[in-house]
Amino acid sequence: MPPKINAGFVEKVLVRFIRDELGKSGARTGLLGLSGGLDSAVCAALAARAVGPENVLGLILPYGQGFPRDVRDAQGLARRLGIRHLTIDIAPQIDAYFAARPKASRIRRGNKMARERMAVLYDHSAAEGGLVLGTSNKTELLIGYGTIHGDMASAINPMGDLYKTQVRELAAHLRIPAAIRRKAPTAGLWPGQTDEGEIGLSYEELDEILYGLVECRKGRKEVVAAGHKPTAVDRVMRLIRGSEFKRRLPPIAKLSPRSVGHDFLHPYDWGK
Amino acid sequence: MPPKINAGFVEKVLVRFIRDELGKSGARTGLLGLSGGLDSAVCAALAARAVGPENVLGLILPYGQGFPRDVRDAQGLARRLGIRHLTIDIAPQIDAYFAARPKASRIRRGNKMARERMAVLYDHSAAEGGLVLGTSNKTELLIGYGTIHGDMASAINPMGDLYKTQVRELAAHLRIPAAIRRKAPTAGLWPGQTDEGEIGLSYEELDEILYGLVECRKGRKEVVAAGHKPTAVDRVMRLIRGSEFKRRLPPIAKLSPRSVGHDFLHPYDWGK
Repeated sequence: MPPKINAGFVEKVLVRFIRDELGKSGARTGLLGLSGGLDSAVCAALAARAVGPENVLGLILPYGQGFPRDVRDAQGLARRLGIRHLTIDIAPQIDAYFAARPKASRIRRGNKMARERMAVLYDHSAAEGGLVLGTSNKTELLIGYGTIHGDMASAINPMGDLYKTQVRELAAHLRIPAAIRRKAPTAGLWPGQTDEGEIGLSYEELDEILYGLVECRKGRKEVVAAGHKPTAVDRVMRLIRGSEFKRRLPPIAKLSPRSVGHDFLHPYDWGK
Repeated sequence: MPPKINAGFVEKVLVRFIRDELGKSGARTGLLGLSGGLDSAVCAALAARAVGPENVLGLILPYGQGFPRDVRDAQGLARRLGIRHLTIDIAPQIDAYFAARPKASRIRRGNKMARERMAVLYDHSAAEGGLVLGTSNKTELLIGYGTIHGDMASAINPMGDLYKTQVRELAAHLRIPAAIRRKAPTAGLWPGQTDEGEIGLSYEELDEILYGLVECRKGRKEVVAAGHKPTAVDRVMRLIRGSEFKRRLPPIAKLSPRSVGHDFLHPYDWGK
């Protein structure tokens, strides 16, 4: 298993990280999408501690009347934290697009919704002079369980180095309400969707396999020997490899001595 | 000035790059947005040579009836290259969102449109089993002249290491119609917008300054001594520094021995 976290210490690091990154960019506000789920609740609680609840804006972006419980949970959390929040229905934009595409799969519809939420968040961040805070955790990033340029898009991603099971520990420490902590994790793209159902593994098992492969640098055999089904390990390895494109910038064909994304990476590569 | 390119050689490299990258990912189709401008025309011509025109899909995504000449130029180019093309008006989605925000600035409206075009392109790439080809050039990437998660989003970016003035050379070599090559470059976000007007420098001067600073590793003084106004050089330096966030992935707070974006970068960092 990934090690138990020292939740008090992790809280301090992440609160400082959010405060520093917002400060560096001169942003006044941290914005994030509130789904009513665990990850966004934890991020909102950290942001409220980092910059004060009045400087955090939670956007609750349901599609129509679906998932009323999640909307209520998100609104309740925002009130509890004292952060500003807005609820905006994205159905008009989504329906305007899919009216001419009635046969689009639910995956396509779900990805379009995730990207619409991104665009609404970025639009509000421009209006606010704020930064979009990402809510992706390490488990999702490693297996690519998210929409590129959708929920995976952010200006900074505080919890990207915490496995889902570690986010749960942090959530308990931050006293996120049990109603949010106990519900089955879901991308919320269609009714009945759950992360664990779709991935085919519990987060406990998934995190154990990921921790073995990525952090402990174990090979397939060793992870299997540690007690995991070969089919599960193979599935996780396929997910990691197949989602690399979501964890990097688009490749650029190199033609010059100094190229964006190759050897011109940061202002400090560049001198004065 | 950035050196003159060997256009025949650059064509070969980029055609090969597109073919290889599509092949590696198992994609059948290359998709791109066709604006009627130079960069997307060059990218479409390269893609048609790389995978055959029947495997290229150009999406022409105007907002309402604005820019009719650009739409005609884009459609004419697609016919000339023999690639598939679709024209889809994004006004219904954009208007559905801004109906409740009548005072949003034209920058906010423009960025929302760029992100809607991204979402439409990615949705079609999912339906086609294809990859989105980026059309950003090196000049735009270095000064951040583009919308993050909008026109800057792509699966691969063939021309990201060519300055705008070099893209012009390549366009002439590829026999892109003069109507497209000669029009003033514009992001097309509002009538009368031109890149050079907005940036405040001609592309010739901008590329010369960028080439000096980035590729020749000259300092401010040397670039000024080469004949550029100090105010122009300072503006370009500010643009490079201020747009770094568009050229990198969101920072993640590091908490573990192996973190996405820090020291877990690629499958080859990972072993078997």
